[in-house]
Amino acid sequence: MSQSVDLNADMGEGYGPWRMGDDAGLLQVVTSANIACGQHAGDWDTMATTMRAAAQQGVGIGAHPGFADLQGFGRRRVAMPAESVAHLVAYQVGAAQGVARACGTALRHLKLHGALANMAAEDEALARACFQAALAVAPDLVVIVIAGTAQQRAAQALGCRVACEIFADRAYTDDGLLMDRSQPGAVIHDPAVAAQRVLAMLRAGAIIAASGKHLPCAIDTVCVHGDTAEALYTARSIRALLEVQGITLRRFEGRAP
Amino acid sequence: MSQSVDLNADMGEGYGPWRMGDDAGLLQVVTSANIACGQHAGDWDTMATTMRAAAQQGVGIGAHPGFADLQGFGRRRVAMPAESVAHLVAYQVGAAQGVARACGTALRHLKLHGALANMAAEDEALARACFQAALAVAPDLVVIVIAGTAQQRAAQALGCRVACEIFADRAYTDDGLLMDRSQPGAVIHDPAVAAQRVLAMLRAGAIIAASGKHLPCAIDTVCVHGDTAEALYTARSIRALLEVQGITLRRFEGRAP
Amino acid sequence: MSQSVDLNADMGEGYGPWRMGDDAGLLQVVTSANIACGQHAGDWDTMATTMRAAAQQGVGIGAHPGFADLQGFGRRRVAMPAESVAHLVAYQVGAAQGVARACGTALRHLKLHGALANMAAEDEALARACFQAALAVAPDLVVIVIAGTAQQRAAQALGCRVACEIFADRAYTDDGLLMDRSQPGAVIHDPAVAAQRVLAMLRAGAIIAASGKHLPCAIDTVCVHGDTAEALYTARSIRALLEVQGITLRRFEGRAP
Amino acid sequence: MSQSVDLNADMGEGYGPWRMGDDAGLLQVVTSANIACGQHAGDWDTMATTMRAAAQQGVGIGAHPGFADLQGFGRRRVAMPAESVAHLVAYQVGAAQGVARACGTALRHLKLHGALANMAAEDEALARACFQAALAVAPDLVVIVIAGTAQQRAAQALGCRVACEIFADRAYTDDGLLMDRSQPGAVIHDPAVAAQRVLAMLRAGAIIAASGKHLPCAIDTVCVHGDTAEALYTARSIRALLEVQGITLRRFEGRAP
Repeated sequence: MSQSVDLNADMGEGYGPWRMGDDAGLLQVVTSANIACGQHAGDWDTMATTMRAAAQQGVGIGAHPGFADLQGFGRRRVAMPAESVAHLVAYQVGAAQGVARACGTALRHLKLHGALANMAAEDEALARACFQAALAVAPDLVVIVIAGTAQQRAAQALGCRVACEIFADRAYTDDGLLMDRSQPGAVIHDPAVAAQRVLAMLRAGAIIAASGKHLPCAIDTVCVHGDTAEALYTARSIRALLEVQGITLRRFEGRAP
Repeated sequence: MSQSVDLNADMGEGYGPWRMGDDAGLLQVVTSANIACGQHAGDWDTMATTMRAAAQQGVGIGAHPGFADLQGFGRRRVAMPAESVAHLVAYQVGAAQGVARACGTALRHLKLHGALANMAAEDEALARACFQAALAVAPDLVVIVIAGTAQQRAAQALGCRVACEIFADRAYTDDGLLMDRSQPGAVIHDPAVAAQRVLAMLRAGAIIAASGKHLPCAIDTVCVHGDTAEALYTARSIRALLEVQGITLRRFEGRAP
Repeated sequence: MSQSVDLNADMGEGYGPWRMGDDAGLLQVVTSANIACGQHAGDWDTMATTMRAAAQQGVGIGAHPGFADLQGFGRRRVAMPAESVAHLVAYQVGAAQGVARACGTALRHLKLHGALANMAAEDEALARACFQAALAVAPDLVVIVIAGTAQQRAAQALGCRVACEIFADRAYTDDGLLMDRSQPGAVIHDPAVAAQRVLAMLRAGAIIAASGKHLPCAIDTVCVHGDTAEALYTARSIRALLEVQGITLRRFEGRAP
Repeated sequence: MSQSVDLNADMGEGYGPWRMGDDAGLLQVVTSANIACGQHAGDWDTMATTMRAAAQQGVGIGAHPGFADLQGFGRRRVAMPAESVAHLVAYQVGAAQGVARACGTALRHLKLHGALANMAAEDEALARACFQAALAVAPDLVVIVIAGTAQQRAAQALGCRVACEIFADRAYTDDGLLMDRSQPGAVIHDPAVAAQRVLAMLRAGAIIAASGKHLPCAIDTVCVHGDTAEALYTARSIRALLEVQGITLRRFEGRAP
């Protein structure tokens, strides 16, 4: 069983005058922050503010690219050729790297957002196009992959450093995919339940599907979504439970290929 | 008098299904290409296509950031704090660097676009904020400055490498600023006139204003706009005249501070 | 066989500084213009310019709403609930009506664009949501439907006035759907071929699929796309051939339910 | 002194996944709602949701157009020709009318937003262009004007019905303009202070500037901003104080020219 694990959350998901989630609160709990790159959320000012705050707290900064769809928050699937998706990812990772440098900090990791992440979890060629583009921009990035999916296979085929991720607040299907948000029980709102789930999965070294089925996998990081009302409580609850159980929260180093 | 000079043009100024200018033609004539970064023009696919073509032709690739205003093509002044403008520039330069790397090439220079360029030519603090942000992203960039303006002073104060630019197809005021496009004669449409003007300015080592006034300055690069019908003819005309006069067209190296 | 038919083309498909197609030329040939509503193309200035020109030529003005995706020109399918699509259509039809009134003219018809049109041709509930929203905004609109598809069934169920449309420059499948643009032969580039096709379909009172199969249907209007290089030649070719054959080109009145 | 007055607030200022202000709470207090039209805030879904809620509460629905600048929330001045601004306003008013109709309701009034409102308060020709465009779209609109400014003069010259507005939570200069938000004291955060101010201005039949200077004017409606944390308390505080003082809160009818 892991003696340490990373806790990541999406942040900087405001845009212009709009805020989303409690970034300041989350930054005191998590160890990695996935920062929206201006296309589904997160304009340049929001990115800069969030990155400066993350750097001050010693939280790892990641690019979190998604489809260019503010109104749909990157949660709608868009039919695009893989080559265009690669350009879209390179654009956003580059932009995030640019803002990070202008703020005196640097990118550590990559994590795909929303519908793009779901599509890449199902389509290895798409995942590979995304990761390859990101690594062309910043070769040292650790790629967060949804454990057990085509994302993980694509990253391994590329030979890059990866961090395998499970979700604290989302139910899994027996195929190890995230249950669609429209399904009942797909989103876990009770912080205590989420924390116990995480502990159980870490102990089992496996994803535990809604059915109870165990899907053995490496677990390097645990995702807490930042956009729900209870996100901060969930994050705190997980940290508290894991620490009591002797599991340290620490930024991932990235798993060698 | 210079024995060589650079010829630059704005390119990749399409967006989605729309094209602007004859990039393929211009790439056979110019030595540097200023590539729109997705906010006033130039989505990620357009950027990638243009950068690949420029790299193949051995034309130097530059980031060409502007205000985030597709409908106004970045030609409308937007009242923004300098700090936000710096983030905007860092975002775009980073994005351009990202796409360049994904295409196996690299950025060489920076040139501000449209209303942002005009505002930075009048406001040294704004110019400095823009250039500083760009150099934080990519420290080796050569900064193209509009010769004799606050842009040049800002770049010199930062100690970065610069290339001083004159315009082939735009008339100058006695202050060395570009005459507003709404003024008669502000845009020079005759390729032969534009070419003779460039030669005269290179020989004089000075900007020659519409009034005839000479404003001595360094001249490293000559700008031909890419979005007019006659742009390609102007570029060819300049190249032909300069070569006949023994002046080589060659990418700038950047002038030490 | 019809003694008269309407000829429609998409127009106003520029955006900001970008133009697409030869609107001025097409306005001298077609009888109805489908005008982009600002989300996949056609900002407010472009809309106003195009509507004023259409009104001057006596060409019927239609709203041509599509997905909110400038970069993809509304050609990418977006997964959205029907209720949101209805709001999207109401927004665009209202906006088009607003600009038309500010230009002293009025909307006559509705035609869906791109991926939205294709999705509505396959999904009667989606088509109904779109048409119902448009008719709530402007109850007198004639709805152009792709003949023989779910669009036609939806419009008939709503009891609105319709104009049944065939395409001059696109090949059909045996199901009466447009062949995907990525298929060879899907787009007909030869103006003479397109004109003969139109005449044959009008004489047959049927869509003639790529296979030769006849699909009998009402034909009130013929679509020529405005964004191809040969669009104007195709439109002229059709008009010339039909007039020679004694078929008048005239704006549709709309077919009673 | 007026026996009744209208209370208006900006609403529907979310976008996509983002919310702003407590619309549900405000709808129980105000009598008119100014609804963002999709360019500075308020996508089609947000518009529809807000309009349906306003209609259910019997609150008057108004179009609230602003500059097309989501990231700047329409608060940045954009240099545009008046003709383009007119098209922009016609587009948004039409879009709002479209969504209102699709929701089974209707527009009653117009109010300009943010930087556009401020520019129109200073520039009668610009105000006239905006109001004329809006009235071409919907001739029965009552135009809310900032009392005592070029907005009021423009509306009077057009001969449309107007409602003269004062601000509950913003300080005035001696010229009757809103003090810039960057000035100390420009925004009044204390609900009780705001309510007393409103009562004093209604009793005086005049704007009372920060200096104490009285600027006599008609007062038909009082604006409470919807985007501050205390907006709902301010609105309730004003309603409570005015009702205690025998002043009825009632939607404006519009003042004849």
